[in-house]
Amino acid sequence: MAENKQLGKQSIKFAHPPFIRGAASVVGTKEADGPYGKYFDEIEQDPMAGEDSWEEAEGKFQEKAAELAIQKAGCTTEDMRYIVAGDLLGQLMASSFGLIKLERPLFGVYGACSTMGESLAIASMIAEGGFADNVLALTSSHFASAEKQFRFPLGYANQRNKSATWTVTGSGAVVVSAASGIPAGYKSPDKVPEEKNKVHIVGITTGKIVDYGIKDNMNMGACMAPAAADAIVQHFIDFGHSPGQYDKIITGDLGLVGKDILIDIIRAKGYDISENYMDCGIEIYGEEQNVQSGGSGCGCSAVMLTGYILKMLESREWKRVLFVPTGALLSQVSFNEGNSVPGIAHAVLLERR
Amino acid sequence: MAENKQLGKQSIKFAHPPFIRGAASVVGTKEADGPYGKYFDEIEQDPMAGEDSWEEAEGKFQEKAAELAIQKAGCTTEDMRYIVAGDLLGQLMASSFGLIKLERPLFGVYGACSTMGESLAIASMIAEGGFADNVLALTSSHFASAEKQFRFPLGYANQRNKSATWTVTGSGAVVVSAASGIPAGYKSPDKVPEEKNKVHIVGITTGKIVDYGIKDNMNMGACMAPAAADAIVQHFIDFGHSPGQYDKIITGDLGLVGKDILIDIIRAKGYDISENYMDCGIEIYGEEQNVQSGGSGCGCSAVMLTGYILKMLESREWKRVLFVPTGALLSQVSFNEGNSVPGIAHAVLLERR
Repeated sequence: MAENKQLGKQSIKFAHPPFIRGAASVVGTKEADGPYGKYFDEIEQDPMAGEDSWEEAEGKFQEKAAELAIQKAGCTTEDMRYIVAGDLLGQLMASSFGLIKLERPLFGVYGACSTMGESLAIASMIAEGGFADNVLALTSSHFASAEKQFRFPLGYANQRNKSATWTVTGSGAVVVSAASGIPAGYKSPDKVPEEKNKVHIVGITTGKIVDYGIKDNMNMGACMAPAAADAIVQHFIDFGHSPGQYDKIITGDLGLVGKDILIDIIRAKGYDISENYMDCGIEIYGEEQNVQSGGSGCGCSAVMLTGYILKMLESREWKRVLFVPTGALLSQVSFNEGNSVPGIAHAVLLERR
Repeated sequence: MAENKQLGKQSIKFAHPPFIRGAASVVGTKEADGPYGKYFDEIEQDPMAGEDSWEEAEGKFQEKAAELAIQKAGCTTEDMRYIVAGDLLGQLMASSFGLIKLERPLFGVYGACSTMGESLAIASMIAEGGFADNVLALTSSHFASAEKQFRFPLGYANQRNKSATWTVTGSGAVVVSAASGIPAGYKSPDKVPEEKNKVHIVGITTGKIVDYGIKDNMNMGACMAPAAADAIVQHFIDFGHSPGQYDKIITGDLGLVGKDILIDIIRAKGYDISENYMDCGIEIYGEEQNVQSGGSGCGCSAVMLTGYILKMLESREWKRVLFVPTGALLSQVSFNEGNSVPGIAHAVLLERR
């Protein structure tokens, strides 16, 4: 009987779930000083990463994370049929310049801080569709390049709202690989021994733009929470799951303000996620680190995924996680023109079988 | 025997080529005044498209093109399982704000002016992989929003180099649909009567970032030509084709300067494309329209594809076209910091059978 990969309104349930062959996280010193510091693969001591500008520094973080993920997957750069990458900067500067040396076919993507969810979703479809054996999915953010672009010059030393978040300096990269068993007519390795003991990407729920009309770029948690709620609830409906069936439901960077809004919206829709909910932005820094509402940026969920979440799954501490990076669709231009900040979120269902 | 969709180093040859169910082009008055004016579906007389800012105006062009393409495909917005969209603006402002009303799952993409090639490639893989019956792929550009972002304020009335290009105001949208015959285990309609007489996306060759170190943002043709040459030659190698097997080989927006460079580089690699080569940027405006080296922007190749190229294929005037949108990976920040302008190009093989 034909299996339908399209599930419900917005989801895919993969017939042959691709798996994560390798992953790597590269962070800055502030992230290393936080409670998850010991989980990250590499600490870059120099915020400039030896480069001449913040944008190039962020690109260097991507380059390092990419190389390390490929190495940890036991692959070479040439094994990556595609790269799916993006970042927060205008015209994806970090990816455009950071990934040149890899010399691989590149799809640039932008989903604000939801980019890790978007790149994983596209990489999974490419792998499961038979279009590649290995796809590299990655993203990054950098405190200084983000402040420069979206907020104030660092030298201005502006005060920060309690609802403001601190952009994570770091990059997370994942090698997504095709599983064995894809039907004839579709290219894939006959046997994939590396698949054993790995985390599988079982499904995705792709988000829509959701705009509640919030115009405060210092309160992005509130901008993104409605989009996250929309994707998570749609995921439950499409898969016929309840919150209790997940070890963790993990958003990207809603922060303390966004967390409460998210739980309330989802409760109003008939689901209670408060028991097993976690937000990468709340977790990544300690209370003493003076980051107001928490961490943010594409790199936040990316390094928490590659540094911590995947390890918890690989060790079977957790067996099923809904990973939901969250993005605020904000630009300095649209903000200055008085536009609202719509949100988007992309859910990825991870399982360790 | 299993058919291998992965072809050569950088290409996909679809086992069941998706088809273009519908397409639409919406342009401004300058594009309507050019030699291809009669081919475009809709002319927007107001450069602001009734909005309050250039960025929102560009978003409105996307919204209009999307709605018209869906209508011409005989579909509803709800039939689009995904949107794959992007533009030139920081944080994809035009897509982020222009596509909110459609309320469909969105993958934001960025490939500079190669975006139409990238969105078609991803949409095709989604459709052929069995993940969607219909995917909307679109992009846009706007002269005023691009000048504001990348060059000078319009009121400054700066002089333009002979090698400079004029950003096209317009948006092109395409509905990519899954063909019949996708193997069991993969969702697709059993019969697709609409497929008849349509243009099929037979394959793709995805580009790498290519950097020849050129730093002139007023000569983007020179920046992009090496990337276009790289993708086109790799396409010939992967498919085992020669230039004579195409009715047309069509780049996005190399302009007059880039054209000569492209033909020279490709000749040096052993192929002569001069007989059947065409560049959307050279074609879209007339000589009397004072656009220096030609048209550019994501919208340039997108409206030429949806307005003209697809019609030439549907009417069987042409049977096989290699469509190669070309992008200059440039941001105002990277340019001001003295970085080079790398290029990227994504080739899409279109056939009317």
